[in-house]
Amino acid sequence: MPVILVASLDQSAAIVEYVRNRMAEQGVDSLVADVGFRGDPTHHADIPREVVFEAAEQTVETLRAMSADEAGGLIASALSSLILDYYLEGKADGVFAVGDRIFAPIAIKAMHQLPFGIPKLVVTTPSDGSVGTMAGSRDILILDSVLDLASDDRISRGLLDNVSLAMSGMVCGDGQDSSPSESALKPLVALSTTVTTEKAVHQSRIFLEGKGYESVIFHVTGPGGRTMESVINEGQVIGVLDITTAGLSTQPMEPEIVGPDRLTAAGRRGIPQVISVGGLDSTCFASDAVITDSFRHRPSHVREDLRVLVRSSAEESAELGAELARRASASTGPTLICLPLRGISSLDAEGEPFWDPDADAALFQAVRDHASGAARVVELDHHIDDPEFCEAMVNSLTEMIAED
Amino acid sequence: MPVILVASLDQSAAIVEYVRNRMAEQGVDSLVADVGFRGDPTHHADIPREVVFEAAEQTVETLRAMSADEAGGLIASALSSLILDYYLEGKADGVFAVGDRIFAPIAIKAMHQLPFGIPKLVVTTPSDGSVGTMAGSRDILILDSVLDLASDDRISRGLLDNVSLAMSGMVCGDGQDSSPSESALKPLVALSTTVTTEKAVHQSRIFLEGKGYESVIFHVTGPGGRTMESVINEGQVIGVLDITTAGLSTQPMEPEIVGPDRLTAAGRRGIPQVISVGGLDSTCFASDAVITDSFRHRPSHVREDLRVLVRSSAEESAELGAELARRASASTGPTLICLPLRGISSLDAEGEPFWDPDADAALFQAVRDHASGAARVVELDHHIDDPEFCEAMVNSLTEMIAED
Repeated sequence: MPVILVASLDQSAAIVEYVRNRMAEQGVDSLVADVGFRGDPTHHADIPREVVFEAAEQTVETLRAMSADEAGGLIASALSSLILDYYLEGKADGVFAVGDRIFAPIAIKAMHQLPFGIPKLVVTTPSDGSVGTMAGSRDILILDSVLDLASDDRISRGLLDNVSLAMSGMVCGDGQDSSPSESALKPLVALSTTVTTEKAVHQSRIFLEGKGYESVIFHVTGPGGRTMESVINEGQVIGVLDITTAGLSTQPMEPEIVGPDRLTAAGRRGIPQVISVGGLDSTCFASDAVITDSFRHRPSHVREDLRVLVRSSAEESAELGAELARRASASTGPTLICLPLRGISSLDAEGEPFWDPDADAALFQAVRDHASGAARVVELDHHIDDPEFCEAMVNSLTEMIAED
Repeated sequence: MPVILVASLDQSAAIVEYVRNRMAEQGVDSLVADVGFRGDPTHHADIPREVVFEAAEQTVETLRAMSADEAGGLIASALSSLILDYYLEGKADGVFAVGDRIFAPIAIKAMHQLPFGIPKLVVTTPSDGSVGTMAGSRDILILDSVLDLASDDRISRGLLDNVSLAMSGMVCGDGQDSSPSESALKPLVALSTTVTTEKAVHQSRIFLEGKGYESVIFHVTGPGGRTMESVINEGQVIGVLDITTAGLSTQPMEPEIVGPDRLTAAGRRGIPQVISVGGLDSTCFASDAVITDSFRHRPSHVREDLRVLVRSSAEESAELGAELARRASASTGPTLICLPLRGISSLDAEGEPFWDPDADAALFQAVRDHASGAARVVELDHHIDDPEFCEAMVNSLTEMIAED
């Protein structure tokens, strides 16, 4: 059960050696992959940097001529493919990266492209704390260290001992296979949620489970929408119940976090999807302080984590509906858009602060106007939280899956 | 070898149960500590919330009446003390916290108060990515998940399996004790570094090692200065070679990250310290975009990680020198301030972009003017990177330690 140990061997060779020995004591072998491109390697690598660079169709010279960001992106993609090949061939059971504040982001980017479940651990040496934010969309364990770690003192060693043991524990444990419960045989459906659609998602999940499906639920505020698209893209789910498309409204505020790919993976893979408009009544701001002027005087709601939701206007709602319908219409598989005519989030219901039938009407009309191709539209005289609406979405999806 | 499993049992009981069972399969027991204060617990806790609240001298009612931040801070401190007691009594070997975006920061704050080396792991469920930045000053492994994890699907389970195995690996492994090399017997000295003082720190470390000392090196840009102060405070080092006091200049820019405690712990504990002025020639900005107007037209230097250093003015240098001398003068133990008259960082040398003898002279004069009490000042006609300067600092420190 070898671990691929990723590092820049012109910088971190001593740490790599230490960690490798510590894992070996636990019976875990490692394959050292060198991805440094600035200095010259001081140690032997099992996967030399030239192999990684070749996979990236680059030489050390071309990489050095690029910006750190560009070179890092190319190396990350190539590294990710190499690791995945090793993993799929049974030659690697996990990835462990040790890197500085320049290199750690490359390792994290590469790990973002690996499926969930492969043990992933990154130690940054040292970081100013900025690396920790980068992991959010994958199952990556990060230790963001302010210690140099190269100094071989007892505090640094204690830290490296712990991460080596953590990695060893992940690949030695029989966790991945020990509980092949019957649920592993159930078909898996991806659901999208956010705070204001939790009730609808919870109910839909129960309906799905009643029909013998398993659900994986992504929080699509922040980077979760990107994660959901990538899991769909990897073929891990059989269908998608995309109740919460709120990422479309937050995208203009946080374009890099939400990403341009929301609502595209299921359509590209041609798997059945039911889409709704949950959470499109609001744009999510990181705090009250960053609300931009055009949003300032609208109805707003402060979440428990102090993020602030601001009501979408009728004009924005129309744009969001058109964009949603366009993305859904590009699908190559069965696609249904379900419109809950009595409100699209827990805040958008009669008596609640975001209740705005005109804005919702503009959203619905734009969906009707722009839906074409594979995308059918159904309208139900329910609120999104109504069990009848959730059951109807689930029934439609499971019928589409059965016919697919 | 039990693990303290920290969670809010009104929210995360199902995850706690799953993780507890997975660790038990690996032979690891857990003690569940409940620290929720919003809803009512749905499961039994080994350390009930009332015990934690009592240690915080609060009731659930008083906590609920506070802001989340205030309540969280009190709970974190109390939790930290309880965990430390268990650890010191041999009743706990690690801490594993599972929490949402409200709760995870409480667990992380509590872990910040625990010594290095105790295995610490936090899983946030789900997070918007903001939690990852919080770990930076301790050896905390963080998995910042966008998955709900409560849905018991195969992807969430795979993730929880991995973290359970990682935690089990850390506490089962004999890592902490397996290599009691002779270095464990050497006296340990704390050093402070940043990019522009790396050469001086590296040389000093070699001199220290030649004299039979072990070094632990903290990067004091960002939260590393806070970490160094806390490690000194815990009594883990016998002396401090505080070459890089650059945190003082960055503090006005990043007050919460640097913290007000730099240069205070050694003085409070009364252990020998040698202080220099490394890196006080510059203020560190997170990027070019955030440079404030008064810094805009000064000499600047872009680091490899795109952080930008801007030259300190003579006026600022005088203020920094005074502040450094005041903090050093409050020491209760032997304290020496070493001034390198030919430049205070690798950028501040003849021919380098930050070379500014007038600004340095203002710094040095302010140090001379404000040093009093325990703090003596020596001046050397060297650059900070000169081996002679480093050797002199090391000789002074080791003499002070020998006499102490």
